[in-house]
Amino acid sequence: MTILSATLTEVLIPLAAIIGIAFALYQWYLVSFISVSPAAKSEDDGCAEEHLLEEADGPEKVVKCAEIQEAISLGANSFLLTEYKYLGAFLGAFAIIIFLFLGSVKNFSTSKQKCVYDTSAECAPALVTAAFTTVAFILGVLTSVLSGYLGMKIATYANARTTLEARKGVGKAFITAFRSGSVMGFLLAASGLFVLYIAINLFKIYYGTEWEGLFEAITGYGLGGSSVALFGRVGGGIYTKAADVGADLVGKVERNIPEDDPRNPAVIADNVGDNVGDIAGMGSDLFGSFAESSCAALVVASISSFGTEHDFTAMCFPLLISSMGIIVCLVTTLFATDFYEINDTKQIEPTLKRQLIISTILMTLGILLVCYLALPSYFHIYNMGSTPRGVHWGLFFCVAVGLWAGLIIGYTTEYFTSNAYSPVQDVADSCRTGAATNVIFGLALGYKSVIIPIFAIAVAIYVSYSIAVFYGVAVAALGMLSTIATGLAIDAYGPISDNAGGIAEMAGLSHSIRERTDALDAAGNTTAAIGKGFAIGSAALVSLALFGAYVSRASLSTVDVLSARVFIGLIVGAMLPYWFSAMTMKSVGKAALSMVEEVRRQFNTIPGLMEGIASPDYATCVKISTDASIREMIPPGALVMLTPLIVGILFGVQTLAGVLAGALVSGVQIAISASNTGGAWDNAKKYIEAGNSEHARSLGPKGSDAHKAAVIGDTVGDPLKDTSGPSLNILIKLMAVESLVFAPFFAAHGGLLFKI
Amino acid sequence: MTILSATLTEVLIPLAAIIGIAFALYQWYLVSFISVSPAAKSEDDGCAEEHLLEEADGPEKVVKCAEIQEAISLGANSFLLTEYKYLGAFLGAFAIIIFLFLGSVKNFSTSKQKCVYDTSAECAPALVTAAFTTVAFILGVLTSVLSGYLGMKIATYANARTTLEARKGVGKAFITAFRSGSVMGFLLAASGLFVLYIAINLFKIYYGTEWEGLFEAITGYGLGGSSVALFGRVGGGIYTKAADVGADLVGKVERNIPEDDPRNPAVIADNVGDNVGDIAGMGSDLFGSFAESSCAALVVASISSFGTEHDFTAMCFPLLISSMGIIVCLVTTLFATDFYEINDTKQIEPTLKRQLIISTILMTLGILLVCYLALPSYFHIYNMGSTPRGVHWGLFFCVAVGLWAGLIIGYTTEYFTSNAYSPVQDVADSCRTGAATNVIFGLALGYKSVIIPIFAIAVAIYVSYSIAVFYGVAVAALGMLSTIATGLAIDAYGPISDNAGGIAEMAGLSHSIRERTDALDAAGNTTAAIGKGFAIGSAALVSLALFGAYVSRASLSTVDVLSARVFIGLIVGAMLPYWFSAMTMKSVGKAALSMVEEVRRQFNTIPGLMEGIASPDYATCVKISTDASIREMIPPGALVMLTPLIVGILFGVQTLAGVLAGALVSGVQIAISASNTGGAWDNAKKYIEAGNSEHARSLGPKGSDAHKAAVIGDTVGDPLKDTSGPSLNILIKLMAVESLVFAPFFAAHGGLLFKI
Repeated sequence: MTILSATLTEVLIPLAAIIGIAFALYQWYLVSFISVSPAAKSEDDGCAEEHLLEEADGPEKVVKCAEIQEAISLGANSFLLTEYKYLGAFLGAFAIIIFLFLGSVKNFSTSKQKCVYDTSAECAPALVTAAFTTVAFILGVLTSVLSGYLGMKIATYANARTTLEARKGVGKAFITAFRSGSVMGFLLAASGLFVLYIAINLFKIYYGTEWEGLFEAITGYGLGGSSVALFGRVGGGIYTKAADVGADLVGKVERNIPEDDPRNPAVIADNVGDNVGDIAGMGSDLFGSFAESSCAALVVASISSFGTEHDFTAMCFPLLISSMGIIVCLVTTLFATDFYEINDTKQIEPTLKRQLIISTILMTLGILLVCYLALPSYFHIYNMGSTPRGVHWGLFFCVAVGLWAGLIIGYTTEYFTSNAYSPVQDVADSCRTGAATNVIFGLALGYKSVIIPIFAIAVAIYVSYSIAVFYGVAVAALGMLSTIATGLAIDAYGPISDNAGGIAEMAGLSHSIRERTDALDAAGNTTAAIGKGFAIGSAALVSLALFGAYVSRASLSTVDVLSARVFIGLIVGAMLPYWFSAMTMKSVGKAALSMVEEVRRQFNTIPGLMEGIASPDYATCVKISTDASIREMIPPGALVMLTPLIVGILFGVQTLAGVLAGALVSGVQIAISASNTGGAWDNAKKYIEAGNSEHARSLGPKGSDAHKAAVIGDTVGDPLKDTSGPSLNILIKLMAVESLVFAPFFAAHGGLLFKI
Repeated sequence: MTILSATLTEVLIPLAAIIGIAFALYQWYLVSFISVSPAAKSEDDGCAEEHLLEEADGPEKVVKCAEIQEAISLGANSFLLTEYKYLGAFLGAFAIIIFLFLGSVKNFSTSKQKCVYDTSAECAPALVTAAFTTVAFILGVLTSVLSGYLGMKIATYANARTTLEARKGVGKAFITAFRSGSVMGFLLAASGLFVLYIAINLFKIYYGTEWEGLFEAITGYGLGGSSVALFGRVGGGIYTKAADVGADLVGKVERNIPEDDPRNPAVIADNVGDNVGDIAGMGSDLFGSFAESSCAALVVASISSFGTEHDFTAMCFPLLISSMGIIVCLVTTLFATDFYEINDTKQIEPTLKRQLIISTILMTLGILLVCYLALPSYFHIYNMGSTPRGVHWGLFFCVAVGLWAGLIIGYTTEYFTSNAYSPVQDVADSCRTGAATNVIFGLALGYKSVIIPIFAIAVAIYVSYSIAVFYGVAVAALGMLSTIATGLAIDAYGPISDNAGGIAEMAGLSHSIRERTDALDAAGNTTAAIGKGFAIGSAALVSLALFGAYVSRASLSTVDVLSARVFIGLIVGAMLPYWFSAMTMKSVGKAALSMVEEVRRQFNTIPGLMEGIASPDYATCVKISTDASIREMIPPGALVMLTPLIVGILFGVQTLAGVLAGALVSGVQIAISASNTGGAWDNAKKYIEAGNSEHARSLGPKGSDAHKAAVIGDTVGDPLKDTSGPSLNILIKLMAVESLVFAPFFAAHGGLLFKI
């Protein structure tokens, strides 16, 4: 049927995963050559340029850098371990719920049952599938934890090294930061694929060719991945923004000391936050998207002609796309680290943007190849039990439209958040009349930035759905995520550079070093916004694909808005992102207030702190952020995790379908606008600070009224862009995947309220 | 069939309308006794108390008040006339589109055709119905214009009178403001009903008992009403907030002069804005809601057993509910103006809130009576061509659930926006750490305030839909709007008091007068928020009812989210409120910036202005607001008016249904959160200024850092609560009613893109 044989598929997927892991480890190995001890440094080849800077930033500064790195690493480590401890307890309980609820579908019977789709065949007992789903869930949790944790490890390993490399020039520093980012990108993409592949093969020992049960169980993997992502994003987001807002409000506004000044007691907490929020949280988030879109595609594939005809290669099409993605990203990475060298700060942003274009173009060819090798010339997609849809090579367009929609979303995001274009410059200009107009213009910018991404998503949905129903949507999501390794490398590059700048400031390195790290960081800000755009866009497609799989498994043939059950679900679902955002924003606000009080207290009570002769008590601030985020992540987390269960049990599958659709169409808008508003405010402030144009200089310098107004906007944007916005991706994905996993249970026992 | 005969129905409806109009004119007559010329004033009965204040605020102050009132009235008049001129051109063109598009449904054939629902009968030619629809549209436009204009007239007639009455005590001033508000409330409710009634009877001369065609044509009335409301809300909203933000940014923040200070050049424009935005805009908005929900109910009724059995009384059930509403509100008003007398400022807010409860309780009994008299014991609702739904007296619950859901929404809004409760106090408290935390907390409050209203709306929808499908939803909306006269009286009371305070300040009346008008105004702020809550809640129900009627007329039997056409509509529809808000907020921002520049220019170039010895150039500021709002209201207006046409023509009725549902479920959330966030910021600022508690005093006084932060929040909230938020109601209603009117056209010629 397919050109690629099943055996070769069995070899190629793990091979790609192993190549990805090996490449990540090799990049790590290269980064490890940079020494952070002064003794080892003298062994360097030492060019003239370096020696010049070395005099100013000598051995004692290097020791200082190493110490700060150690403190950040310790803080991040201890936070993540605490977070994972709470997570372990919560998700352990949730694993039991999964097992019990799914086991109860056929009243815990251990005998075989009629299959749902192929009614002529016998399928594994619901109890067994419940057990396998629980195992897949735990695997997803562990892989997600690993992704986040390893990402944090490499980031805190690389930050001081980037600072020190900056002494040799901006090119070297860039390569260090980017290499470290790609360690995370490849580790995550490859291990996610590898664990999924192993799980499928292990489950196959029991299920054999009973694909329906096998891939039903595999959906637990996506749920596990996203559950960790939820708490990682929310907890990490609250942590980083409580510290950031708290540090800025006292340090920059009241005490007039620069960002990352070592005298600020919250400065270590702020830097820790970048690693646990932007790195670990983002890692888990994108891993979740990857796992979920793969699961959604696999579930639909298993009940389509791939499954009924036991066409293993075609069924593994989603995994083959991801395998190809790893190889493509590997080649793409070399363009940034080996084929070119950056000599000037102006080249940073174009180089990063070029990564996106190169990977998209190469991947388009890659998809073509996979489609040619791994798809039969003609096949059927059975969706929602309705009439099968015949599909041929057109599936290529589904994947490609997702991939290119991602690029469009990325570029739109850049246009609205980079200070090279007029939207951000307008926002900066509005600071002339104060903070109020800045906030008004910023909010308006965020709202406006929604338009093009939504049209891009709508086109992607329409094209992919028309070709291959929800399977098309699922592979479109995979297409958008196929270059995840590169996307994550660019993303992780940002916080690493940010931290590198922080360490330079704290260690008191010379001004030119700070300028180089600032240039790295500014480019990182824009690319971070692009990364968030990708995350949201893919989340929208993934949720829709999961929604389709859910509907299929809940045996719904329509979800009719004209039914009151669906409509009330729709309107309540559209409300959930607001409820969720209210919680997370208030949490950041409250935590920031405690942080402000502690920082003020230290400035007021520690003699000599402002003069720089006494050290602040960093640990207390770290503790405040840790405690607040652990405490405050529970209510929003519970809202997201419990809503599908409550709605499904009380109101049944129809209303739940409405809730999912409502949350999706409303959440994606708030997520995009929140991220972009925050990004724009941040860069409007940086635009005034940098003063690179006549216009920018007329608004500055630092400390001017316009700059103060810009700082207020930036502070408001912090929780929007780093806590509420990105968490909403997970809200819409997680509710969908959870509904998918529990669909058989809801279909069997749900809708109690309407039964009365 | 019904207890009430058709003849009696024909008498009772116009009777109620005439009573309403007469009552309004009587209230106006009572207000007119208050003289604003110093000569006439000496003829007053003059109690001792009054004479005390008269010495300080003698004849020359009265003359000053009259002058200011004249200036405000002139400005408002000239703006509305300009606005209506542009509106006339735009809506004239739109009337032609309506005629041409609807006429083309059967290719401009003048011969009779088969009816859509009762296929055995012959119906009027599509061309004739197109002509009648156009007439109804024009009637709707004219009535809406009249409502807004008369409201503005009485408001600008009453503001100085309220100021002068405040010299006699807070009770007298309250009665004047409230009476004037109720003039508007009753005029609007009664004339809306009257014109609709006349139109139905005139159209009946041609249509006879061919209800299907008659009520199809009547829908044009709703479209006309809402079209004016859109431009009124957007134009008026931009006008008032450009002036308000501009005046505050320079006056309060830069020059440190109080609000409404006569030295501020934008002060007249600001006061004009209250009358054209909050009064005329709000009037047209609620008139639109009333007209639309009546039309939606009438359309469904006409194709149900009421229509097929020619049961005129039952068909007029929606109008009888509104008639009863007028009588109930009349009685309710007497509780505020005649049965009680206010002696203390603390009694104002409870008195206003009592109005809502009294009218709701009385109206519940009123609905019961109308249901008993005007409904057959059993009847069928034919909806969407599906199986008829049998309904009996249970229809009472549909109306009642709407009425009471309105009360719950009103009270929730009050809880979140009044500074008597913890949410606003928390926001005020967050000003301690600056404007950024204030904005974060305010946004979070707005998001949170969405939860209960959405649940109330969901319950209302579920109950009313379960009982009588979309007819139930339509009468639920009518139930919520049945107390519109009282609601509008309370609403209009706010800006009148606000203006009264402004006039007191500008005319330099003594401090005690200003304190009394401030107390009136503070209560008005909360009730304005309540009014907005009502407007949004009813808009949600109205849109859903219109959506149902649209679906029915477009012959759609399902609107399936699982269809790609519907889903892309849903996600794009959910985006529209963001696009629209981006436009309106940016418009306010831009207009405010020009205002700021002009005000600054005047302060810098007019010698003696700050010292109060030279007069500012008010007219230029009025012109800036006028020009900006006329110019800026076009793009958002076009977005709303053209979207249904473009989507319907290019993508067809399915996608349009998705767009309507998406805009509804997303828009209602943004509208509620924007209104409440803005209201909360406004009252948080007032809370600090008033300093009525230990906590409030610790944040104040005026000019403290916390107060400055609160002013920034208030300024950000201005466009949210008075421009974007309230306009979104109209967005969701107008798109729905427009789709309903054009449904036959789209069904005949739409969906060009998918036909290719």
